[in-house]
Amino acid sequence: LNLIYALDLIGTFVFAISGTLTAAGKKLDIFGASVIAFVTALGGGTIRDVLIGSQPVSWMLDLNYLLVIGIAVIVSFFFKKHIQQLRKTMFFFDTIGIGMFTILGLQKTLILGMSPIIALMMGTVSAVFGGVLRDILCGEIPLIFRKEIYATACLAGGTLFLILTNLGANYDISVWSTVSFIIVLRALAVKRHWSLPFVS
Amino acid sequence: LNLIYALDLIGTFVFAISGTLTAAGKKLDIFGASVIAFVTALGGGTIRDVLIGSQPVSWMLDLNYLLVIGIAVIVSFFFKKHIQQLRKTMFFFDTIGIGMFTILGLQKTLILGMSPIIALMMGTVSAVFGGVLRDILCGEIPLIFRKEIYATACLAGGTLFLILTNLGANYDISVWSTVSFIIVLRALAVKRHWSLPFVS
Amino acid sequence: LNLIYALDLIGTFVFAISGTLTAAGKKLDIFGASVIAFVTALGGGTIRDVLIGSQPVSWMLDLNYLLVIGIAVIVSFFFKKHIQQLRKTMFFFDTIGIGMFTILGLQKTLILGMSPIIALMMGTVSAVFGGVLRDILCGEIPLIFRKEIYATACLAGGTLFLILTNLGANYDISVWSTVSFIIVLRALAVKRHWSLPFVS
Repeated sequence: LNLIYALDLIGTFVFAISGTLTAAGKKLDIFGASVIAFVTALGGGTIRDVLIGSQPVSWMLDLNYLLVIGIAVIVSFFFKKHIQQLRKTMFFFDTIGIGMFTILGLQKTLILGMSPIIALMMGTVSAVFGGVLRDILCGEIPLIFRKEIYATACLAGGTLFLILTNLGANYDISVWSTVSFIIVLRALAVKRHWSLPFVS
Repeated sequence: LNLIYALDLIGTFVFAISGTLTAAGKKLDIFGASVIAFVTALGGGTIRDVLIGSQPVSWMLDLNYLLVIGIAVIVSFFFKKHIQQLRKTMFFFDTIGIGMFTILGLQKTLILGMSPIIALMMGTVSAVFGGVLRDILCGEIPLIFRKEIYATACLAGGTLFLILTNLGANYDISVWSTVSFIIVLRALAVKRHWSLPFVS
Repeated sequence: LNLIYALDLIGTFVFAISGTLTAAGKKLDIFGASVIAFVTALGGGTIRDVLIGSQPVSWMLDLNYLLVIGIAVIVSFFFKKHIQQLRKTMFFFDTIGIGMFTILGLQKTLILGMSPIIALMMGTVSAVFGGVLRDILCGEIPLIFRKEIYATACLAGGTLFLILTNLGANYDISVWSTVSFIIVLRALAVKRHWSLPFVS
């Protein structure tokens, strides 16, 4: 469980960095950038908690999430250029992040006794809606509504996780299979320019 | 009650179609369009449920709503041009939809013991805020803030419903009177270009 | 306590006026303007209540808030030009408003047993996020993300309030010291063009 907690914090950290970098392009001050970092990292889980009625929302009960976001904002502020060169590393940890967020959101919803379909939706919301809120706050149409298969990878990964655990697979094995699957899927999607059909 | 449930689902269906068609104008992929369809159809009721503290939000407990939205997205995707020619039919069912959403939202709030004024607001929020969320996600100033008397029709209809039920009228008669009243009001408003005074 | 309740209502009134005036610049009708006024005045407290799980949200239980907002919209509608000349008065009461909202939000969170850091955040959210929602609904990047030290003044004032009450200071004295401190801080910030470092 400790490794999973660590990965959850790492996901939070990477999401917060991506939020701060987006803010940098919008001429925001350090407060605005912190809000965007926070919303990018914890907005998805917050929406999930509010929808399923699990309040106070989870980050209020564990201050490590705020701490990690604070560090991410400071690091981004001082090492912006270095981070922008670490594209592949960022992509890798970002994908671990959405994988972990999907699984944890899915489990939290299942534990409350809701249907697997709702759990799958809430897992994806946890992983994806932080970015949606970030884009809305920055005045842009949310990127994932027209980007490569970002949310689709969460849905596919979440489905795999549900199948594996229902087949009785070991928890750790299910987690690693799911995260690896999402990483491979996203890497392929970017490389081969996969995209969903457009509605136009 | 079954007819009312059917009308609620029909309203959901028509709202989801209108969401998908809005998405089509924004060059979104099918995932983005589905999110917009979902938010248009269920966003108002979701905000209502969160504000009054009725969680998990209602669509999590009845998967028929998701099913209806899925069908609406597929239908819109394949029959876009046909639907756009059905303007009057769409307007008719859309208005039945806001009528039903207003009444159901109003009742749900009253049952929790809140004031009729709050119930009236929550009825209108149920009917109208799905469209507000849709416009925000699509990067536009919400249409209803400057359109013909859309929300006003919900407020007027909700008030009529409150008066009728308080006078002891039969439930079905109150529902039909309210929905008919909203339909006539909107049709007149569109025909005669009624609008609220502007603040400028 | 009665004076504090009065100041809370005055803050609500001034926020609602500022919302209506923003709406006036966007060519909204009177319904749209009322929604913006409402969201500006009560949106921050609503988000706070939803995050900490205190539902139904507070304004549903005391209709005076809605009444005050209604009056503010009507007053703004008829006396727009007069109000726009009262810049300094508006600034003064707006600052009292954010001070009161910060303190009341902070206390409400502490009473639920949450950490002072979370309480400080929720106090600031109460004071500041009404304006954020207003800007999002009007299609703009939220002003406070790049404005003089607006939210920072709330954080600083909230911290002072926490310190004073922890030192055992009288409640009224803590409130007045905090509000005065925020007023002086904002006045200085505006006069001397203080701003936070930008991320760019």
